[in-house]
Amino acid sequence: MVRWEADASGRLREAAMQLYVERGFEQTTVAEIAKRAGLTARTFFRYFADKREVLFAGSADLQERLVRALEAAPDSASPMQAVAAALAVGATTLGQHHEHSRLRQSIINANADLQERELIKLASLAAALADGLRRRGVPEPDASLAAETGIVVLRVAFERWVGEPLGADLSQATAAALDRLGVVTSAR
Amino acid sequence: MVRWEADASGRLREAAMQLYVERGFEQTTVAEIAKRAGLTARTFFRYFADKREVLFAGSADLQERLVRALEAAPDSASPMQAVAAALAVGATTLGQHHEHSRLRQSIINANADLQERELIKLASLAAALADGLRRRGVPEPDASLAAETGIVVLRVAFERWVGEPLGADLSQATAAALDRLGVVTSAR
Repeated sequence: MVRWEADASGRLREAAMQLYVERGFEQTTVAEIAKRAGLTARTFFRYFADKREVLFAGSADLQERLVRALEAAPDSASPMQAVAAALAVGATTLGQHHEHSRLRQSIINANADLQERELIKLASLAAALADGLRRRGVPEPDASLAAETGIVVLRVAFERWVGEPLGADLSQATAAALDRLGVVTSAR
Repeated sequence: MVRWEADASGRLREAAMQLYVERGFEQTTVAEIAKRAGLTARTFFRYFADKREVLFAGSADLQERLVRALEAAPDSASPMQAVAAALAVGATTLGQHHEHSRLRQSIINANADLQERELIKLASLAAALADGLRRRGVPEPDASLAAETGIVVLRVAFERWVGEPLGADLSQATAAALDRLGVVTSAR
């Protein structure tokens, strides 16, 4: 019972994903998610602000990991090298559950509200990386350019990866996208 | 009277900006905007879906200009050169009214909903440029990387420019940011 309660958040996430896939995001209510998880709506709201947030529950943790990796980069690292270190950690974190990521992305792609929420989370991630670069002494506009470009790379790699056969490697896709960015931006 | 009616959209935009600055965006109603412009709320909704859209009235036109500039780039242009041509047109268009842009940006920066709307418009702009690049035969992920990175450059340059003394040149700021992008991404 204790373990059951302790994993309420995970069960709510799982129930929500199931229902979003079965019925669509719009057609699913918080009451239904809670019921499927064997919990109450009140418990739901203890963990999530609304039914959109269930899909973005990992984003604060992800942001913290990326910023820590950026901070841990050696002093000698260029802004883009520090961002690349953060992206590598992001790819490892996001790349663990291919099928889950696919389902989640298909739910987001089908709903304009969710796409907005995702844009906001990505903008927040980019802003956090730019902050981290400025704390490393990187001046503007370099800090913003490196951070925002890094998030573009991660998003483009992620979108390609969710469309690839199960078992594909997000770290590899991210490294490849970073290489292509170098090629594309050098041909000016 | 005809000329009066014909410029209803412009008058509504002007009245909205005044009220957003005087009272704040949240505290302003559509009825008040219409009244200040000497028009009715019904007329307002003939031009704008809601009071947020007044601030983004030029975005469809801007997108069209950027895509046309991208399409007009010579066949020999690299993806990033085609994007740079689009950004140059974007900077010329956006850079015409420094004080107005500043006011508008201060309104947007003070409101989370407006910031979301802006993120959506920028994502739409990037998607349109990526579409344009794919029509030019640019493969993925290069098309998305060049387009999204280009929009990052335009946004970073725009944000710096609105903070600069009146009369500063957005075209110059955009060209400078594009140069810095090249420097930043080459130090990988």
